[in-house]
Amino acid sequence: MNRHTTTRHRAYMELFASARTDGKLSLTNRIVVGAILISVVLAVVGTEQQVSIDNQTVLRWAEFAFGLFFLVEYVVRLWAAAERPGDASATAKRFEWARSFFALIDLAVVVASLVPFLVTGAPIFRLVRLFRLASLLRFGEFSFALRALQAAIVDRRYDLYVTGALAGLLVLVGATALYWAESAAQPEAFGSIPRAMWWSIITLTTVGYGDVSPVTTLGKIFAAIVALSGIGLVAMPTGIIAAAFSDAMQDHRARRTAATENAE
Amino acid sequence: MNRHTTTRHRAYMELFASARTDGKLSLTNRIVVGAILISVVLAVVGTEQQVSIDNQTVLRWAEFAFGLFFLVEYVVRLWAAAERPGDASATAKRFEWARSFFALIDLAVVVASLVPFLVTGAPIFRLVRLFRLASLLRFGEFSFALRALQAAIVDRRYDLYVTGALAGLLVLVGATALYWAESAAQPEAFGSIPRAMWWSIITLTTVGYGDVSPVTTLGKIFAAIVALSGIGLVAMPTGIIAAAFSDAMQDHRARRTAATENAE
Amino acid sequence: MNRHTTTRHRAYMELFASARTDGKLSLTNRIVVGAILISVVLAVVGTEQQVSIDNQTVLRWAEFAFGLFFLVEYVVRLWAAAERPGDASATAKRFEWARSFFALIDLAVVVASLVPFLVTGAPIFRLVRLFRLASLLRFGEFSFALRALQAAIVDRRYDLYVTGALAGLLVLVGATALYWAESAAQPEAFGSIPRAMWWSIITLTTVGYGDVSPVTTLGKIFAAIVALSGIGLVAMPTGIIAAAFSDAMQDHRARRTAATENAE
Amino acid sequence: MNRHTTTRHRAYMELFASARTDGKLSLTNRIVVGAILISVVLAVVGTEQQVSIDNQTVLRWAEFAFGLFFLVEYVVRLWAAAERPGDASATAKRFEWARSFFALIDLAVVVASLVPFLVTGAPIFRLVRLFRLASLLRFGEFSFALRALQAAIVDRRYDLYVTGALAGLLVLVGATALYWAESAAQPEAFGSIPRAMWWSIITLTTVGYGDVSPVTTLGKIFAAIVALSGIGLVAMPTGIIAAAFSDAMQDHRARRTAATENAE
Repeated sequence: MNRHTTTRHRAYMELFASARTDGKLSLTNRIVVGAILISVVLAVVGTEQQVSIDNQTVLRWAEFAFGLFFLVEYVVRLWAAAERPGDASATAKRFEWARSFFALIDLAVVVASLVPFLVTGAPIFRLVRLFRLASLLRFGEFSFALRALQAAIVDRRYDLYVTGALAGLLVLVGATALYWAESAAQPEAFGSIPRAMWWSIITLTTVGYGDVSPVTTLGKIFAAIVALSGIGLVAMPTGIIAAAFSDAMQDHRARRTAATENAE
Repeated sequence: MNRHTTTRHRAYMELFASARTDGKLSLTNRIVVGAILISVVLAVVGTEQQVSIDNQTVLRWAEFAFGLFFLVEYVVRLWAAAERPGDASATAKRFEWARSFFALIDLAVVVASLVPFLVTGAPIFRLVRLFRLASLLRFGEFSFALRALQAAIVDRRYDLYVTGALAGLLVLVGATALYWAESAAQPEAFGSIPRAMWWSIITLTTVGYGDVSPVTTLGKIFAAIVALSGIGLVAMPTGIIAAAFSDAMQDHRARRTAATENAE
Repeated sequence: MNRHTTTRHRAYMELFASARTDGKLSLTNRIVVGAILISVVLAVVGTEQQVSIDNQTVLRWAEFAFGLFFLVEYVVRLWAAAERPGDASATAKRFEWARSFFALIDLAVVVASLVPFLVTGAPIFRLVRLFRLASLLRFGEFSFALRALQAAIVDRRYDLYVTGALAGLLVLVGATALYWAESAAQPEAFGSIPRAMWWSIITLTTVGYGDVSPVTTLGKIFAAIVALSGIGLVAMPTGIIAAAFSDAMQDHRARRTAATENAE
Repeated sequence: MNRHTTTRHRAYMELFASARTDGKLSLTNRIVVGAILISVVLAVVGTEQQVSIDNQTVLRWAEFAFGLFFLVEYVVRLWAAAERPGDASATAKRFEWARSFFALIDLAVVVASLVPFLVTGAPIFRLVRLFRLASLLRFGEFSFALRALQAAIVDRRYDLYVTGALAGLLVLVGATALYWAESAAQPEAFGSIPRAMWWSIITLTTVGYGDVSPVTTLGKIFAAIVALSGIGLVAMPTGIIAAAFSDAMQDHRARRTAATENAE
């Protein structure tokens, strides 16, 4: 193993969280996570006009610095990807990594971060910086949580499909009832079924802004029936995901506890 | 088996989802499901006045085409119903099918879809087209889900009846308390117990539009007590249905998984 | 057994639901339940001024008739109470029954129903008629449900006491934070901690009328933290009651199913 | 054991709830709990300006009396702390107690209660009196509940961290979507992502004040998707704490029931 390979292997171990078996993050990983969080907070706060105007120079330079940092990180990861396990050539491994979901997101974010410095205008690219958060999903517990969520959704897809359809049906029935009762009194809010669906969704999720609510007696009776019967049923699909996710996390915890006890 | 019978049997296998044992939908079934979904979306979107005026000709022709399509489907199903299992004559089997719940809904929807083209006026018939959605409940997972929901409701009818009565009692007690406290200050919203029940239901389901809310100190104290003690209890009946439905779906999934494993 | 005793025993079996072992209601019980429900609906609807003025004579006579009916029922029950099991004298048994919780409620309701016909004014007595609903709790499933709820509350009193205190603490902490942040900007709504508690309770139960909500940035940050951390914790006491009640109903159902199967 | 030690030991047994093994509160403990509750109620009610002006003298004297009472309690506890188990000297035990979490809170509250009587102004110190509630957490069931909550949070820290991050992500995604759709129409409410986060949090917790809600069609569609998909997921972290807390309370109850049965 020559000196070149050793450096590349160390870079691989430092940058690829999946390369480590203890589930912990390397120092470099921690710095990358910190940089992602700080750059996202800056991007969020920077949308506030007053903050953005007062700190224009600082924000612009910080954005440029983060853009360069993530570009360097991408290039080093591409180079170190040759260390991934397998018999393929270094170029093939790099290409395989570059086509992976997270690598494509990283590339898109790097490009979107640096484009505003090359081309004038293009303010919409600024929001793309928020996608950097998606890169966090590679790391540690999140990478597991993501797989657990995905498995939970696949495993209960029939439940989700049936309860999702039931929720949709309730939303439609509620909207139709209120359209029928209120369209004459409030044409702006209930003048069509799609308009009434806004009311229906905001009521059945129990958000209840109050920007639209029935004013006729018949409309109130229908709304009361819809609210009493629909509450809880519309929340069933997310309830199923939440329960599945919670089960998966508990399994994971139990397995880790067992592994820790065996290791001791 | 002559050629006529063979065609009829094939039509039966294609149209009646219950005839198939693998629980999958035939190509014809899929086309019917698609046609139902598209025609319902058109009916929903068509209630938006601007859309309806701009696309009057297209919507009218589409509606006529769907009406004819579902008429043809109904006639072919009636003809193919003679293939249903049993010793009765073809006419008896057809009559038996025609009296079934789903066949009656299909007939009603076909009639309601085509009547506006024969008689002028009758705009209320347009909403009947939404009942086509009910026809979807015949198919695949939904047909099971419907039976599961029905069984869950029958099985826990005492729980539903007791918790439903408790929820009703809470709504009434809340309405009476607020009627007593607020009727002088807000006669429009709390001037009678039925009016106060609107407040009571919207509060206890936690929707909380804010179109009516107590303004007196006593009213606020009562409302706070009602909200703190009633939250969760009013949602009990739907919670019971949701839990029963969820259990039934899980059983179904477990059984299907077992069946799939046995088949392999 | 002379004829008098026979009539009295029959009256006892007809009127006292607890005398029957099959848990079903006698014909007289069903009539009483119906009369209670109708008289309560009339009392509720009668608070609506327009209805009350239009049907003054009908409502007055109906109320008088129901008052007499429940007076007669009370007197007959008092007479038949002598048939209750035990060695005491008929008078002692009657006195014992008359002192029971439900008999006192019945007496109070009978008096309150007939007083407005003797004394002018006294409109507040009209609401007492709603207490007749409490008499329903004697019957069938409800009598069990009431005992189950009581047992569930006694059994989990420590949980209720601790989670209730936690909910109260959250409400107080939220109110104090918003009082601190918003009292200058909105003295009417947040000018004191008791005023801010109205906001706190309506927010933490997720009702959210919107009649009061923070307008300052600091108030919004505090409100967001309170909402995110408090949601679900304030609902814990009712959640505990709901879960205990649900368990008790399920036990009851299992026992009844077992009993039915044994009987067959 | 001389007379001095006996008195001190009795004071220790009376004041330190942890010294008793039966988990019950001594008479002195009950008086202290009562004094804390009354003084907190006075502090809360005293923030209402009208009450505060009308009863200025009474409230001032009551506050002074409570301040003295808690000062005396603190000094006696410090003196009696020498009776705590262990081999250290009396002074060492007292110093150890004085550095404990609850002793520091007690000292802070005593100082904050009496400072306004020495220094003019300093109205902010008045709110510190509410921290006295924290002293209640030493006593009986609460002391257990606190430890149970702490253990539950430590035990499920990974679940909390992952679901908390997921909730944060949902809030951010919702805020970004609405910022994108609504910032032009409502710059005051949706003009930046931090502003839109207020909407996002109030919607996803289902509070839904209605002070800000989307008005454009695109904004309503995004809001409907956010509400339907996010409901329940944002409540996951508190749901996990609530479930863990509930489990811990149930274990505690089971253990106490078992202990009571063994004792009989």
